[in-house]
Amino acid sequence: MEEIGRGVGMTKGNLYYYFKNKQEILYYAQRRSLERLLKVSERIERLKADPAQRLHLLAEAHVRCLLGEMHAAAAHIEFHALPRTQLRRVISQRDRYERRVRGMIEEGMRHGLFVRGDSKLSTFAVLGALNWAVRWYRPDGPWGVEDIAKGLARILVRGLLARSRTYREASLGKVMA
Amino acid sequence: MEEIGRGVGMTKGNLYYYFKNKQEILYYAQRRSLERLLKVSERIERLKADPAQRLHLLAEAHVRCLLGEMHAAAAHIEFHALPRTQLRRVISQRDRYERRVRGMIEEGMRHGLFVRGDSKLSTFAVLGALNWAVRWYRPDGPWGVEDIAKGLARILVRGLLARSRTYREASLGKVMA
Repeated sequence: MEEIGRGVGMTKGNLYYYFKNKQEILYYAQRRSLERLLKVSERIERLKADPAQRLHLLAEAHVRCLLGEMHAAAAHIEFHALPRTQLRRVISQRDRYERRVRGMIEEGMRHGLFVRGDSKLSTFAVLGALNWAVRWYRPDGPWGVEDIAKGLARILVRGLLARSRTYREASLGKVMA
Repeated sequence: MEEIGRGVGMTKGNLYYYFKNKQEILYYAQRRSLERLLKVSERIERLKADPAQRLHLLAEAHVRCLLGEMHAAAAHIEFHALPRTQLRRVISQRDRYERRVRGMIEEGMRHGLFVRGDSKLSTFAVLGALNWAVRWYRPDGPWGVEDIAKGLARILVRGLLARSRTYREASLGKVMA
C-alpha cells in the first residue's frame, strides 16, 4: 500500500479512505486502464491510418497507460491477487482488448502490410514486450515514458512489417483530444 | 508449493524434503535457469553463425528454459520474493545474461544486420516478449513449447533485421549436445 501511495502521491491512510483494501485498488486500476485502452482503440479505429500506424498508436498508448498513470506498476502485475468475480470481469475486459490488438494485426496481414503468421502469437509477443516494461521501468532511469512508448512501438511494429523498413508514424494528438 | 510440486511431478512433502521453503526453491530455480542460459549463450558464441542466427537460438533456449523446465512459471515471476542477499546474486547473474543478449544485438547493429537503435531498449523488448510467455502459456493450450520458442524467436529477430525479411535459422542441436 505504501508503494502504491507513493506512486500516486497519497499517504497509505488516504488511500484507505477511498478504498477498502489493496485488492480494491488493484481492481479499480485494472478496470480503469483497460477501459481507457479500449476507448483509445476505438478512437484509433476511426482514424484514417493504416494498420501499422494504428498499432503504433495503440502500443504507445498502452505504455503510457501502464507507466504513467495512477494504476502503478504493481497494480498491473499483481493481477491474479483479485477475488474470483473481479478477476473474471477484468479477464473478460482484457480479452476484449487483446482481440482489438489482434484484429489490427490481422488487418495488417490481410492487406499484405504485415508478414503473415500466427496473429495470436504475434499479439502475445507485442503485448508481452509492452507489459514487461512495468518490470524494468524506473522513474529515475535513463528513459522517460515517452521514449519508451515510442521506442517499443517502433521496434514491435517494425517486427511485423512485411516489406518497407519504415512507416510514417501517425500522431495520437488528434486521437486523445 | 502444491503448484510447483505439480509442475515437477513431486508432492509438496517431497519438495520440502529437498528445500527448506518456497524461497529456497525460487532461488534454486532462478540460479539454475540463469546458469543454463549463460552456458547456452557461451556455446552459441562459439558457433559459426551470424548475430541473427545467434539471437534466434538464444531466444528459443530462453523460452524452453522458461516453459519446459522444473523452474516452473511461478518461479520466474515471483523473483522479488527472494531475501536480499539471494536477490542480489540472482540480479547480478541476470544482468550478466542481459549483457550477453545486448552484446548479440549490438554486434548485429555494428554489422549492419540489425537496424541501428537503442540496443538496451531492444534487449528489454526481446526479453520482455519472451518472459511474458510464462503469463499466458498453458500446457493444455494450442501451442507446444517448441511452437512458442520458434514463433517468438522468429517474430523478435525479424523485428531487429535491417533489410532481408528472412534469415537462415541455425539449429541448436549441435549447441545443446
